[in-house]
Amino acid sequence: MYTAREFFRVLIMARSSHGDTTRHNIIMTALALYAERGLDGVSLRTISAESGTRNSAAAHYHFGSRLGVLEAVVTFITNYTRPAFKAGLDATEADAHPSLRAVVEAMATPYLSLAVTPDWGPAALRFMAHLNADNTPDVVQLMNKHFRPDVERIELQLHRVLPDVPRDILRIRLAITFVNLIHGAAEIDMLSNTPFGNIRPDNNTLFNCFVDYVEGGLSANPVGR
Amino acid sequence: MYTAREFFRVLIMARSSHGDTTRHNIIMTALALYAERGLDGVSLRTISAESGTRNSAAAHYHFGSRLGVLEAVVTFITNYTRPAFKAGLDATEADAHPSLRAVVEAMATPYLSLAVTPDWGPAALRFMAHLNADNTPDVVQLMNKHFRPDVERIELQLHRVLPDVPRDILRIRLAITFVNLIHGAAEIDMLSNTPFGNIRPDNNTLFNCFVDYVEGGLSANPVGR
Repeated sequence: MYTAREFFRVLIMARSSHGDTTRHNIIMTALALYAERGLDGVSLRTISAESGTRNSAAAHYHFGSRLGVLEAVVTFITNYTRPAFKAGLDATEADAHPSLRAVVEAMATPYLSLAVTPDWGPAALRFMAHLNADNTPDVVQLMNKHFRPDVERIELQLHRVLPDVPRDILRIRLAITFVNLIHGAAEIDMLSNTPFGNIRPDNNTLFNCFVDYVEGGLSANPVGR
Repeated sequence: MYTAREFFRVLIMARSSHGDTTRHNIIMTALALYAERGLDGVSLRTISAESGTRNSAAAHYHFGSRLGVLEAVVTFITNYTRPAFKAGLDATEADAHPSLRAVVEAMATPYLSLAVTPDWGPAALRFMAHLNADNTPDVVQLMNKHFRPDVERIELQLHRVLPDVPRDILRIRLAITFVNLIHGAAEIDMLSNTPFGNIRPDNNTLFNCFVDYVEGGLSANPVGR
């Protein structure tokens, strides 16, 4: 397994050898540190120092505040994941009779692709997991700004393909699905260390396994109603 | 929402007024601090200091090591959750034709009951989430020691009620289910702050919603095979 700490060492090495800009270095350093220590456990000063710049106020200079840094990291991650997500969802919206599976695959792709993205992907998932679990107003606002339109599009498509699931139940299931995908993808490495030994299959089987599960969960008969 | 920090303040007040023992204070303090800062972010010295004892080595004295403290916290939590879990699973095992729902309810009860346990329940879930995501050998060993027999019993019952799901796929789905229940329960408060507003239902509806979802996920047709 690639722990956050190991990742961080790799990152430092990669950065030194690639000569990236200070701004990019700060984003990647913040991603690694927030992933490892949580959103409240890292100061801008620490990020600046660990990013390799000599200016201890560099993170503040470039991004203004902790929220500015968080937003830059989110933007970096979504710039990477959004094209595939958007393509999947565009296709679903254009389809007169889309399948539930197509919607779920569009939802799942960003998370599971990060899980297999070398170096920074798993840390990005842990970062997103922290962000998703943070209920403070500024972080909620940041998440809404970046993800509300996507979430609304997904919910509309799910309602199209699952018209019989009551809308309020569907939305709770959608929230459960995001928890499932973010944390499931972030903790994929745990599959190599279960009470049944190493049960991690190839990535394709794993992707299908997640999609099957989510499809089953979203479309389940609402017994509790 | 009850943040870890708010919880911690409540805990401190509760402790002061109840006059619990040093040992119990250390366990509850460790639970709160680990939940908030992660398993690597808290020293035994910090736990001792925050627990209100004057002996800065108290955590080390009572539990020997970080692993000893982690184990004491796990034991405290499972002593609380195991009776209901065991009753549900015992009933399933004794039933000649148990339902999938009965197995899932036995699995889900510990997590969702912690979510509604005042004061320390949500922090216990965040603690368990950290523990579950930690792939270091000593933590994996601790988790196996405490949970392997339970997990094996659950897996066997799931195989009984879902004989058509290939065993390797069933085990991956079981792992996904644990992620889903731990993090879902730990992040229940996020349901009051979604892109669709506050969608949190009453606890009974929410419990059924989780059970429906997990039942659907575990029993889904394995399309990916």
